[in-house]
Order: sequence, then C-alpha cells, then structure tokens
Amino acid sequence: MQRDDMILSAFFFNPQGDHRVSWRYPTAPGHEIYGLPYFQKLAEVAEAARFDAVFIADHVAMWDTFPSNVAHYANARLEPITLLSALAAVTRDIGLIGTVSASYSEPYNTARAFASLDHLSMGRAAWNVVTSGMNEEAMNFGRDGNIEHGYRYERAAEFLEIAKDLWDSWEDGAVLLDKATGFFAEPSKVHRIEHEGKHFKVRGPLNVPRPPQGYPVIVQAGSSGDGKNLAAKHADLHFAVVRTLEDGVSYRREMNALLASHGREPDSLKILPGILPIVAGSREEAQEKREFLETLVPERFGVDLVSSWCGTDVSHLPIDGPLPELPDESTYDGQRSNLARLKSFKQQNLSIREVARRLSNAGAVPMVAGRPQDIADEMEAWFKGGACDGFNLMFPVLPEDWLNFAEQVVPELQRRGIAQPSYRHGTLRDKLGLARPANRFAAS
Amino acid sequence: MQRDDMILSAFFFNPQGDHRVSWRYPTAPGHEIYGLPYFQKLAEVAEAARFDAVFIADHVAMWDTFPSNVAHYANARLEPITLLSALAAVTRDIGLIGTVSASYSEPYNTARAFASLDHLSMGRAAWNVVTSGMNEEAMNFGRDGNIEHGYRYERAAEFLEIAKDLWDSWEDGAVLLDKATGFFAEPSKVHRIEHEGKHFKVRGPLNVPRPPQGYPVIVQAGSSGDGKNLAAKHADLHFAVVRTLEDGVSYRREMNALLASHGREPDSLKILPGILPIVAGSREEAQEKREFLETLVPERFGVDLVSSWCGTDVSHLPIDGPLPELPDESTYDGQRSNLARLKSFKQQNLSIREVARRLSNAGAVPMVAGRPQDIADEMEAWFKGGACDGFNLMFPVLPEDWLNFAEQVVPELQRRGIAQPSYRHGTLRDKLGLARPANRFAAS
Repeated sequence: MQRDDMILSAFFFNPQGDHRVSWRYPTAPGHEIYGLPYFQKLAEVAEAARFDAVFIADHVAMWDTFPSNVAHYANARLEPITLLSALAAVTRDIGLIGTVSASYSEPYNTARAFASLDHLSMGRAAWNVVTSGMNEEAMNFGRDGNIEHGYRYERAAEFLEIAKDLWDSWEDGAVLLDKATGFFAEPSKVHRIEHEGKHFKVRGPLNVPRPPQGYPVIVQAGSSGDGKNLAAKHADLHFAVVRTLEDGVSYRREMNALLASHGREPDSLKILPGILPIVAGSREEAQEKREFLETLVPERFGVDLVSSWCGTDVSHLPIDGPLPELPDESTYDGQRSNLARLKSFKQQNLSIREVARRLSNAGAVPMVAGRPQDIADEMEAWFKGGACDGFNLMFPVLPEDWLNFAEQVVPELQRRGIAQPSYRHGTLRDKLGLARPANRFAAS
Repeated sequence: MQRDDMILSAFFFNPQGDHRVSWRYPTAPGHEIYGLPYFQKLAEVAEAARFDAVFIADHVAMWDTFPSNVAHYANARLEPITLLSALAAVTRDIGLIGTVSASYSEPYNTARAFASLDHLSMGRAAWNVVTSGMNEEAMNFGRDGNIEHGYRYERAAEFLEIAKDLWDSWEDGAVLLDKATGFFAEPSKVHRIEHEGKHFKVRGPLNVPRPPQGYPVIVQAGSSGDGKNLAAKHADLHFAVVRTLEDGVSYRREMNALLASHGREPDSLKILPGILPIVAGSREEAQEKREFLETLVPERFGVDLVSSWCGTDVSHLPIDGPLPELPDESTYDGQRSNLARLKSFKQQNLSIREVARRLSNAGAVPMVAGRPQDIADEMEAWFKGGACDGFNLMFPVLPEDWLNFAEQVVPELQRRGIAQPSYRHGTLRDKLGLARPANRFAAS
C-alpha cells in the first residue's frame, strides 16, 4: 500500500532523552518523569506536529553492572504499556508503540495487553518485539545469566506466531451480541489455537476480540541476522541503524530480498532508520551542545559504560590507552550493532576516554544537526533517495529537542510536501499504508 | 487508622454486569464494551458519587468447557491493567483495583505494572491478588490442567513477598535527580532483593521508583482457608462472601484473630462483603427484575453452568432431578465458596433446573433490593452492626444498576452520614484510612 510522505516516529527510552546523561541537562525534566502530565504534553506536541507515533523502548531490569550505573544513570522510569494506555485516553490519532520482551513474558498475557490497548486506542497500538540481552534482565526472571542470542530469537519467533494466532482466535464478526437469539458469539468463528511448540504450549482462544487492526502494528528493531529475519517474516515497521544514504539504499535492497523470500512485497515493511536530530542555529552550535553534554558524563560512569559494551571490566586499563581485545560475534550477547561499533572504534585506535565520550552520545545512529532547513535537507535526500520510508527520531535531550523538531523542522518538511499536513483517517495501519492482516482461521 | 464512613467499591467482571447473561438485558451495552468511553462514563458516575474504587475482576482465559459457554456467555472483554491505566488518565480521585493472577505472570512484570500505574494515577492503584483455578487458564500457560489449590496459594504468597521487596528496592528518597553533583540516585538506597525461593528467583532492583503509596493497596478476595490466611498476612482490603449481618460480625471476629496472629491490628484490614444491589420501586419489583433475567438464560447454558460448578457433566441427568454427588473439598479445585453453595443447594433438594437459575444470578452474595431507603437501611445496619467496613457492589446489570445506585442510594447514605460527601485528600491509602507501609530495606 502507498504512503507517499515520510513516517515520523518520536522515540525515547529514558524520558529525558537518548543521551546517556541527558537527565543532567539544564532544561531536562525532574521528578515529573514519574507522572502522566509530562508525557501527555510530549504526546500533544507530537500529535500537533502530526508525528505518526510515540515509541517507547524498554528493558526489564535496571542497569547496575557497575556501581556508577546506579549512582549516575537514569535507571528508573515508568513501564511502557501502562503509560501508553494512559496516553491512549488523552490522544486521538498518534500511534502508540510499546516495547515488550518476548524473552520474559507470557504470549497469552502479552497478546491480551496489546489487543486491549488496540481496542482502547481505536486501532493505534504497535508492539516493538524485542528479546532481552542483558544479564540484569535474565536475573530478574529466574536465571543466572543471559540466554544465547539465536535461542532468544527462535523463542521470540514462536512467541509472535502464538500472539498472531491468539489475535485471530476471534474472527472478525465473531462477536454477535445478539440479544434476541441469545448468541453472544458465533461459535464457528471462535478458535482454540492448540499451539504446542518448542518453547510454548498455549490452547487459546484469547479472551479479547480481534483487535481493530487485526494485529497491532509489529515493530522490529534488531539489526542482527536473526533480527532482520524476524523483521522480514513478521514486522510491519523496522527500525534500522544506517549511517549514510547509500547504506540506507543497500539496506533496503537487502531487506527486499529477505521479504521476497517470505513472499512479501517491499511496501509491506516500512524501514525507519534512527537519526539523532538537533535543531540549532548552525551545525557548530549543535556540535557545541553535544560537547556540553559530554562534559556532564562522570568519568567513572564513562569508563563503566565502555566496560558494559565490551563485556569486560576496563577500569583497570589506562583511560587514555586502547580498548581491550573484543569478543567475537559468537560469544557477544548484546546487540550486534554495538559490537560492530566497538570494532570500528578499535580500528580507529580510539582511547577508552574517547570511546566513552562517543558511547555517551546515545546509540550508533547518525546525528542530523543544524538549522531546520539543514535537517530537512538531509531527511529529504534520504527519503527521496530511497534510503528509508521515514525516520525514528531519537532526540538527545527531552523535551527540548522534541519540541524544537516538532515546531521548527516539521513545518519545513510539510512545506516541502514530504511530511503529512494532517492525519489520514482510520487505524494506525491505515495511516501508515499497511494492510490489515487476513485471519489465519477464516475461511477464504 | 480511622475511616468513619463506609467504603464503597464498584465491581465488575463482565462489563454488562454480574448476572451471567446480563449482556442480553434490554438496556445492556453492545459493542461499546470494547471502547474506552463506556468505562469512562461508568468511572465518572462513580467518581461523582464518591465511590472509593472501581474494581475489575479477571480470568486469564475464556470459559469454554462447554460449547454453550462460547455461544451464550460474554466471554470476551478488555484486559484490566490497560483499561485501568486509561481510566487513570481521565479520573482524579477514584481507586483503581485491578485483578492480576499470581499463578500465570512474572513477579517482576506485575510489580512493575502496578508501580507504574500507582505513579500514573498519583497513588490510586490497587492489586487484587488472585490465583487461577480454571483448567482453561492453565491450558493457556503450558499446562494440561489446573494447579492444586494449596500450591497455588503458596506460590501466590511468595509472589507477593517478591513484589513487596521490589517496591521497596528503591527506598523513598532514593531518586536524587541532582543535576549539580551528577547523582541520579543515592546508591545506598537502591537494593537488589536477591530473592531465591521455592517458586521464584528474582534479583532486582525494580526499574521503577517506589510507588507513591509505598505498595499499591493489596486486595484479597478468596474465602478459602488459604485465601483468608493470605489476606490476614498481606492484604489491606478483603472482599468477603457473607450472607447475613451476623455472619459478617463473626467473620470480622475470625479475621481479627488471624490478623493478630500476624501482629496486625483489626483496622489494618478493611472487610467489604459483596452485595448485589438492585434499586427498584419495591422488593417485589426487584424480584421481578431477577426473574426476568432468569428467563434470558438459555436452558442448555444453565445446565452447563451447573456442570462447570460441579466439575462433572450433568447434561445427561434429568433437568428436574437432583444434583449428582459433589466432590469434597480436597478434590475440588474451584472457589471454596462455590462448593459450599452447591452443598447447600443439594441439602435443599433443589433440581438441576433450579440450581441453574440460582447460579445464573451471579455469585453467592446476598441481594439487597428495594427502594433506595430499603437498601440504605440494610447497608446501615450491617455497617453500624460491625459486620463490615463497607461493601463491594456487584451490580447484576450495567450500566443501569450502577447508575441507579450512584444517583439514588448514595445520596441517601450521605444524608445519613455513613457515605463520604467528598473525597479525602491524598492517595487511595490515605482515603481508605490505611497506613503507608514501612520499607523493608530502610534503616529504622
């Protein structure tokens, strides 16, 4: 299906922004991050700017490998599903993307929560399906350490198959509510799913009717081979880490081939690379803001950040010396893109201090900074150049960068005809140009 | 702590009301039960009447033992946590009681969801801790059949201990958010819980700060010995099944003894018996409404309802004949109060048809019906007679009975000075006269 302008998703994990110590920034919020009004304001700004979605990342643990993590990192925040459900009540059009781990929850509970959110929001729910790769997460769920990468993805794929079966277990039209005849449901349209797989056994049916969107929009954000395969098979939106326009074009080509192997059209998967947008009077001013943020990172916290990424304690090494030997892909249990980034730092001979500084600037995504027209130029070039279907906006500092982008960059994109001036009608799938999935149990 | 007027909790499982086929009632809602506005209206009416709480019951399965369940029973509904989170955004004072099973979810996820809901609602979250007793539920979570009663409660008690530890894992004041020093948290106030028990292993800490109420209000609704023990050890509110004022007085005495065995004061557990209130011009008119509801129960559905309760198929027995032999308490896996009720029916020599009729009228709680002053008389007698701290209002038909009660009975109770004319300030605990729990990890 067609969507002729770019998709814009406004992302956060920490509600103070994506920079590791954004919470220390002068205009960053304080204790209001634990209340609804702060997020309601962000959502209202996002909706006024016609953003397609608010996207909340998540971990099922706090990060406390090193004591400095506890002391200096914004380790406590609200849970995405409760927060998005509350936001559903005070918004009308914006998509609600919530992250839930397929490693440490039950398919029945997760399918139910998203079905219910989809009903409550009249078809605006989206599930970012992740696997949990932190040891801290594993230890909150009965394990001593992390689950191996391939196994996690295998389990996630089965989890998602079950969720789809459960969403289909009440066919469209199964709820009759016919007071005259006494038929609440049409029994032939309600199905036990009888799933028995390697990881799960789930009988069904779900106790929520089929969601308005059929399935909530499925989002996949991993860039490993396993992640890309999961996206190509199951996802509607894919958050990619892409450094350049050219990378984006070749990434699209690679994903199209994967999609074809699952019998899917390119249009059925929207690819949104992450960018780190900073509106400033000039690129130099934006760079100054980044450098100011770096001064806010406590030294020990920076070193421990490098240790976390490397999977080994580097605090005994000289801070101005090189990184230690890095694990290879088969033994590295974190995100593949993280390891690739470390390897590139090592090739560049960066010191631990320099790597700490880079890592404190959020993830591996490119900064797009400058005046509104500079940012719009770069986004337009990527979008028109076939590098993406839109962007996942990973603002370094909230609410400042979010507000600046909404109020200054979006009008420029709208003026150029590449960002939507108003919302389309219908569900989030309708708005994004995604088809409503057929039901697996329905007679064709 | 003192609370000198009665506590009123407005309950539902099916959003059409507690009668088994309330959905067929002429004024019952249709497909709007799958959208927020219907529930928002109920909550607004409840808040205008100064109800203390909205209480949503739950199962983690649909009930499909017999085909008639699927055809005739309102088997699909929204999920409580998402619904209550949405309601948190559009209400201000009312308590939000959500049911989550301690049998088929993870302590870390559940503790997080309630902590987050408590923050979002500014201290109005309450968790009705249940165990899951249906075979249908077990089969959605990897099992072939139900878990034994005592084992379920043992697991639930451990689950709740973990949740309390997790809520305490960030002490009050642990979040510093000190931009000047770079200390987000005070590390000495953030605790790993290092739980290793029979059923769970959870390291912690939680990644949500301590809830505004310390712990959300803990609700317990079972009337088995295991259930009462769990309530006496852990709960703040206890929903009881009590048939008469005298039963209520002796129930209170029994619970006080149990509370004392855990070192607790009577005031620390509020007991709310369930009642089934029907406002009508007279008791006769209320009785006519019940009888009309009974005519809406399809015969086969009624018979299957009896089979479900008995744990054995009675459909081959004469419908006007007696109940079969009943299981004893050691082999009965449902609610203890259900078995007691069946035994009483058997003693009265009721036929299967008559039992079906009784069972279709919701649970075992007494009907309190008649003019507003009749209902207020009975409630006043119970409350002033020491039979309860308030009531769990289990309306047969929604929204009608809920609205009638709010608009006609509450003003009468307020006139008599036994229902609150306005909300008290503070959290739900403050409003209910419940202490904020001390933190297990805090230095005293």
